[in-house]
Amino acid sequence: MKLSPFAPKSPPHLPAIDGVRLAACESGIKYKNRTDLLLMLFDPGTSVAGVFTHSKTAGAPVEWCRTQLPGGQARALVVNSGNSNAFTGARGRDTVKATAEAAAKAAGCEPNAVFIASTGVIGQPFDASVITRQLPALSKSAHGDGWADAASAIMTTDTHPKLATRTASIDGIAITLNGIAKGSGMIAPDMATLLCFVATDAPIDAAVLQHLLQPAADQSFNAITVDGDTSTSDTLLVFATHAAAKRGVAPIRDASDPRLAGFRKALDALTLDLALQVVKDGEGLTKFVTLHITGAETATAARRIGMSIANSPLVKTAIAGDDPNWGRLVMAVGKAGEMADPDKMAIRFGDIQVAENGSAVASYTEAAGAAYFKRSEITLTVDVGVGNARATVYTCDLTADYVSINADYRS
Amino acid sequence: MKLSPFAPKSPPHLPAIDGVRLAACESGIKYKNRTDLLLMLFDPGTSVAGVFTHSKTAGAPVEWCRTQLPGGQARALVVNSGNSNAFTGARGRDTVKATAEAAAKAAGCEPNAVFIASTGVIGQPFDASVITRQLPALSKSAHGDGWADAASAIMTTDTHPKLATRTASIDGIAITLNGIAKGSGMIAPDMATLLCFVATDAPIDAAVLQHLLQPAADQSFNAITVDGDTSTSDTLLVFATHAAAKRGVAPIRDASDPRLAGFRKALDALTLDLALQVVKDGEGLTKFVTLHITGAETATAARRIGMSIANSPLVKTAIAGDDPNWGRLVMAVGKAGEMADPDKMAIRFGDIQVAENGSAVASYTEAAGAAYFKRSEITLTVDVGVGNARATVYTCDLTADYVSINADYRS
Repeated sequence: MKLSPFAPKSPPHLPAIDGVRLAACESGIKYKNRTDLLLMLFDPGTSVAGVFTHSKTAGAPVEWCRTQLPGGQARALVVNSGNSNAFTGARGRDTVKATAEAAAKAAGCEPNAVFIASTGVIGQPFDASVITRQLPALSKSAHGDGWADAASAIMTTDTHPKLATRTASIDGIAITLNGIAKGSGMIAPDMATLLCFVATDAPIDAAVLQHLLQPAADQSFNAITVDGDTSTSDTLLVFATHAAAKRGVAPIRDASDPRLAGFRKALDALTLDLALQVVKDGEGLTKFVTLHITGAETATAARRIGMSIANSPLVKTAIAGDDPNWGRLVMAVGKAGEMADPDKMAIRFGDIQVAENGSAVASYTEAAGAAYFKRSEITLTVDVGVGNARATVYTCDLTADYVSINADYRS
Repeated sequence: MKLSPFAPKSPPHLPAIDGVRLAACESGIKYKNRTDLLLMLFDPGTSVAGVFTHSKTAGAPVEWCRTQLPGGQARALVVNSGNSNAFTGARGRDTVKATAEAAAKAAGCEPNAVFIASTGVIGQPFDASVITRQLPALSKSAHGDGWADAASAIMTTDTHPKLATRTASIDGIAITLNGIAKGSGMIAPDMATLLCFVATDAPIDAAVLQHLLQPAADQSFNAITVDGDTSTSDTLLVFATHAAAKRGVAPIRDASDPRLAGFRKALDALTLDLALQVVKDGEGLTKFVTLHITGAETATAARRIGMSIANSPLVKTAIAGDDPNWGRLVMAVGKAGEMADPDKMAIRFGDIQVAENGSAVASYTEAAGAAYFKRSEITLTVDVGVGNARATVYTCDLTADYVSINADYRS
C-alpha cells in the first residue's frame, strides 16, 4: 500500500488523558501480523455522546450504540477492524451482545456502558469468541499512553494512523482532547465518518456533549467525501471522563454555558483535523481539494452542490489529470438539482478568476489554470449566483489507483 | 480509443424513412478528419416530441428546443459534436439563434421549426459561422440513406456509432422507426440521454407523440447510468413525418387510440436498444450489468436504490475486479436513503441465491460467485424486503481506463 502523499512525517504524540486507558492486540479476525482489536476503558462517571451513519443497512454495532447512547454513560469501548459485522442478522446481534457482556465483565460495569464499533468486510458473521477471549488480557494491560497503538488497530485500507490532540481552557484550567479516526474508502459520511473516537477529561454532561458534537461533525466529517459511498458503520463517539473536576473544573450541565467556548472551538478543530486526515488518505489520491460553494439559496443547497461536485467522477478524474476542465464544475452544479443561475455563475481556482457572469473572463488563460491544477492542494470556489448561503466541502481526486485498490480489495 | 467489447460486429442498416433526409460533414469545430455536423430535414407536416436534461445548467441548444417544442412542428434538426455550447451565456444563445435562422433558410421554413443539439466541451463559446456556412451545401446533399453517416457525426467519446430500427403496424400498414444515439461518459440521464434522435413515418400528432415518449424514456434512457454524471445537453427528440398517411394510415390524434399499441411497443424497444448501446459503450467498461431491484416501497424508491448501487464506485470497481463483494450491494442499498429491511433482504447473482433473510445462504459459495462475476454480462437482483415495487437499471463497471479517458479528455 502506497503511503498517502499527505501522510504526516510523524504522527502527533497524544498525551494521556486522566480516566482513559487503552490496549490493542492481534485478534486474527481477518488480518495477519497487525493489530485489529482495541479496548478503551473509562473511569466511572464518564459521559458519552455520538453520531452515527444514516445508512438504512447500518451494522449491528451501530444499532447497539444507538440503543445505549441515551444512558449517557460509558465505561468501555471495543473496536475491531477487518469485519464490520454489518448485514449479519441475528448472528451479528448475538456477537455484539456477547462482546458487550465480556467487556462489561472485564471493565466491572453493566453491558449498557459498553460501546462497540466494527469496520471491514460487510456480510460475514463472526463468532464473538475471537474478540471476547482477548478482553481479560487487554483490560489488564490497558494504560494511558496507548493512543498510537489504538489508532493503528482500527485501520483498514488507511495508509497511516490518524491522531490529533488539542487543549482548551475551562475556568482557567487546562483540558485535553484526544482523537483517533480511521477511513480511506467508502467515505461520504452522513452524520459521522467511518470511525472516530474522541476522549477528554472535561467534566461535560452527556446531553451537553451531544449538543456540541452535531455541529462539530457537520463542519468536519459531514463535509468530506472520497467516493460518495456511505458506510454501514460510521460512528463518531466522544467520551468525557470528568477527571478535570478533580482539578477544580466545575461540571458543565448546560449547553449555553459560556465556559464552553474554548472547548467547542477545540472540538471543532480536532474533528476537522481528523476529517481532513481521512480525506487526505483517500484511496489512491494524489490531490486534496477544498471546494467553496457561495451564492447558494440555502446552506443545505450549498452543501449539496458541493457534494455533487466533490462526488463527480468527471470532476475528480479531471483533477487527477491536471486538467482545469471547469466545464465539468458547471455540469456538476447543474446535476445537483439545487437552484443555480448559469448567467450569474462565477468560478475561481485559488485566486485565479476563471469565469464570471456565466462565461470565462478575458484574463483567464488555460495555461494559468493548468499550472494551478498541477498543485497537490487546490481550492476551487464556485458562486452559483442565486443567494448568499455558502458551504465548504473537502475531497480528493479519483485515480486509477482507487480502481485498483477496490477491484482487488478482497483478493 | 479501444472499441467497446460490446460493440456490434456491424451496425444495423437503417432503411430510408419517407419524409426524412440527412447529411453530415466536417465543420472543423473541434475534431480533425471526422464528421461533426449533422443536418436532418423533414417534410412539411412533421410533428415532434422531446424530453430534455433536468440539469440546472442546461446548454443554450436545450433551452432553444424547450422553447420551440410546444409548436409541435419540425422541419430541420442541426446537431454538432465537439462543443456543447453550454455555459456560454448570451454568446451561446446568439449562436443558437443564428444557426436556427440559417437552417430555416436552407430548409425553407420558420426558425421555430428548427431543432438544435450540441455535445462536447462545456464553457467554450463558438461562432455560429462554423456551422451556418455548411448548411446550404448540406441541405442540397441531404438524402434518405444518410443514417449511418448521421450516427457517426454525433459521436464524442463513443467508440462506435449507435443505430437501431424497428417496424410496427398501424391499420395493417407497415410503419418504420429509426433512431440514432450518442453517449459514453457523463451518462446519468434524467429525462433523456445525451443525444438521441428518432424518426418515423407514422402520422402521429405531437401531443400524442409526447405522451408516448416519456414512458419510453423512463424505461430506457432514464434507467441507465455510466458514471452518475448528468449532462448539460441531454436531448431526446422524436420526429413523425406522417408520410404513412399517404399509404392509408389515418392520422392519430388521441393518446388512448388503441391503434397505438404496436407503435408504443416498437418505440419502447427502439429506445431501450439505443440506451443499452450507450451503457454498453460506457467509457472504459469491460462489463455490462443489469440490476433488478424488487421488494421496494415504491417504484421510485426501487429506481433510487438501483441507481445508488449502479453509481457506487465501490460496487463498480468490485465488478471490474471480478469480485462478488455483495457486502457493497448492501452498503449501496443503505446509502440510498429509501426504506429497506436488512433482516429481510435477499441477493441473487443470475440464478445463484447469495443471501436471504438478511444473511448469506448456506448453499452459496464464494467460488460460485467468483465464477459468475467473470462473465462479461451479469445480472444482480436485490430484494430490499419492504414492499412489492420494482425497477430495472442498467450500468457498467468502473475501470482504470475510465479514469485515464477522463483524466486526459482534453489533452
